[in-house]
Amino acid sequence: MVSARKFHQYDGMFKMRNGHLTNPTIAYETWGTLNFQRDNGILIFTGLSPSAHAASSEEDPSTGWWEQMIGDGKPIDTTKYFVICINSLGSCFGSTGPASVNPETGDLYRLNFPVLTIDDIAHAGHEVVKALDLKRLHAVVGASMGGMTSLAYSVLYPDVAEAMVTISGSPRAAPFAIALRSLQREIIRSDPVWSDGNYDPDVEPVLGMRLARKLGMLTYRSAAELEARFGRELIPEERQTGAPFGLDFEVESYLEAHANKFIGTFDANCYLYLSRAMDLFDIADHGGSVEHGLKQVGASRAMVIGVKTDLLFPIDHQQRIAEGLDDGSREVEFHSLDSIQGHDAFLVDMDRFRPILCDFFNCSMNQPGKLREA
Amino acid sequence: MVSARKFHQYDGMFKMRNGHLTNPTIAYETWGTLNFQRDNGILIFTGLSPSAHAASSEEDPSTGWWEQMIGDGKPIDTTKYFVICINSLGSCFGSTGPASVNPETGDLYRLNFPVLTIDDIAHAGHEVVKALDLKRLHAVVGASMGGMTSLAYSVLYPDVAEAMVTISGSPRAAPFAIALRSLQREIIRSDPVWSDGNYDPDVEPVLGMRLARKLGMLTYRSAAELEARFGRELIPEERQTGAPFGLDFEVESYLEAHANKFIGTFDANCYLYLSRAMDLFDIADHGGSVEHGLKQVGASRAMVIGVKTDLLFPIDHQQRIAEGLDDGSREVEFHSLDSIQGHDAFLVDMDRFRPILCDFFNCSMNQPGKLREA
Repeated sequence: MVSARKFHQYDGMFKMRNGHLTNPTIAYETWGTLNFQRDNGILIFTGLSPSAHAASSEEDPSTGWWEQMIGDGKPIDTTKYFVICINSLGSCFGSTGPASVNPETGDLYRLNFPVLTIDDIAHAGHEVVKALDLKRLHAVVGASMGGMTSLAYSVLYPDVAEAMVTISGSPRAAPFAIALRSLQREIIRSDPVWSDGNYDPDVEPVLGMRLARKLGMLTYRSAAELEARFGRELIPEERQTGAPFGLDFEVESYLEAHANKFIGTFDANCYLYLSRAMDLFDIADHGGSVEHGLKQVGASRAMVIGVKTDLLFPIDHQQRIAEGLDDGSREVEFHSLDSIQGHDAFLVDMDRFRPILCDFFNCSMNQPGKLREA
Repeated sequence: MVSARKFHQYDGMFKMRNGHLTNPTIAYETWGTLNFQRDNGILIFTGLSPSAHAASSEEDPSTGWWEQMIGDGKPIDTTKYFVICINSLGSCFGSTGPASVNPETGDLYRLNFPVLTIDDIAHAGHEVVKALDLKRLHAVVGASMGGMTSLAYSVLYPDVAEAMVTISGSPRAAPFAIALRSLQREIIRSDPVWSDGNYDPDVEPVLGMRLARKLGMLTYRSAAELEARFGRELIPEERQTGAPFGLDFEVESYLEAHANKFIGTFDANCYLYLSRAMDLFDIADHGGSVEHGLKQVGASRAMVIGVKTDLLFPIDHQQRIAEGLDDGSREVEFHSLDSIQGHDAFLVDMDRFRPILCDFFNCSMNQPGKLREA
């Protein structure tokens, strides 16, 4: 599952809540060129499931998960910025996680991996920043779980990033989101193949992952989008399986296709750890309250983007982040978007997201006639 | 699982979409006294899981599922009305369903039960109305699936009910609700114990039912209610099990308790049939469009109640019903409620629902000083 182009190996014991990792690896990718002042870096943290491959490159021309946002002349312009995307600690795309070998034992970590937190992911990301010898970052950016991580990073390293962008993030996991993720985890754990995390890596708990992914999809999109795309359209007879209580409606077929695409691409134990890390996240752990936590953010400019149809990271969470950041010490922009794509809008409703990111990063895309600054 | 006090046995072949039932039984309960004109009946259809035991009675003093709404001096006043609650065809509380014996074979129906529709449930309910020799009904009332059934009943028997009340119902299942129910059904079908519906009735697919119920609970309540009730409260250590990825937060414990209460009370095959019946419901099947379907409703008075935080039967569905009914041929009341309890509000937010039902049924509860009309 290794797709990242670069790896940083941490030298020593990486401490976590109830244990440590020995010499963990942090996988990442970069685009663009570091300037002489070493201060044009934009650090990107991802959501739960993507790798560090946010955009294509010469070394890896495959389409990245934020292909339309990052590149030459794009909103996060790689002719201007040195862009770094981190594969989260605990994930399975090159960074050390539950599916990695514990060098102390020679066995896979599995459930012996220590409890993972969003702060751990931020700390691990900063190890790459240090290894690249970046003194300052132009910005730290993240959506979904990455929005939480960007917040954590800006609090843990208040002097590093000049700007912070959080998209469809949250200052603390709400009980509704906790309950949904907990149910996804229980579905995976209920798959007999999971075997308390001791499954053969070649025989994953496919059933649990399939059902958990379907539940995820229902929280990543919105009722309005499903209505517009599928309505009550039936699956044509030739595509029906005839199985008892099999799929009747196109919306069911859509979920099935998404689940099939996901199966086999993500390690189940890694999923459990990252999912729980979101539940455990509460910016109030830094400062005693959400408001005090947000005050610890060091960035002098911040942008908060949310989507009104987001069920999982609802718009009032975005509002709360924006209000907490707007304490007079910095510039804060808040965008509450009408996208019907719910939580996933940042991946698909590009016509709405592109111009906002472009403005924030002063890109040339919106300025016809202006010569590119490259 | 038989809790209803009365049973009507249909004489002959009850026709359904792709088959028939022979002499099916419809279980029901009644409260109050039929008047001389035989026109003071209020027919109640239930949601997916309740039995016909809507309120306590001398014969069965246990608390009913709508105990606060039905009774002497209550909004649906049993000193004034003859109230009938139907156990839906396809359910497992006395009415014939997949868990019943097929008299033609001597075996349980299981998946040989014909495809069940909301219209079938309405037809079966009407068999009780006929058996009781009721010429007219004062009203037909239903919430959730029962709201769909009340709509279907009012279209199929336009001359019977003078008034119709639909609460948190829908004119047609939306793809988001279909997808959620489809996933619940897939979770149940994925339980190896289910065995294509051929489980031993004493050894039910408990795991599948538990997970499906948890998913149901998350769609029956709202994020705002979970926030208000549980926030991020942790389960005290003495109640934690220590199982890997076991429950950490009180909201998880709440779902667990609800699932445990449900397990063993409802037959899995019946659940599958009733769940799919809701997906298949579309009032447009009567008349070609939702608007034409709603025009077929015979009631001269209608009340539509919805809750703004309802995820599963959202408020715009209620609005659409109210607008479709309001064609100049009848009085229509529409109530859009601010309850934070989501879809289940009609079962718990009684302070909001009671006065509305009371007004509609001209009950004495709201009229201090007025002598009861009994």
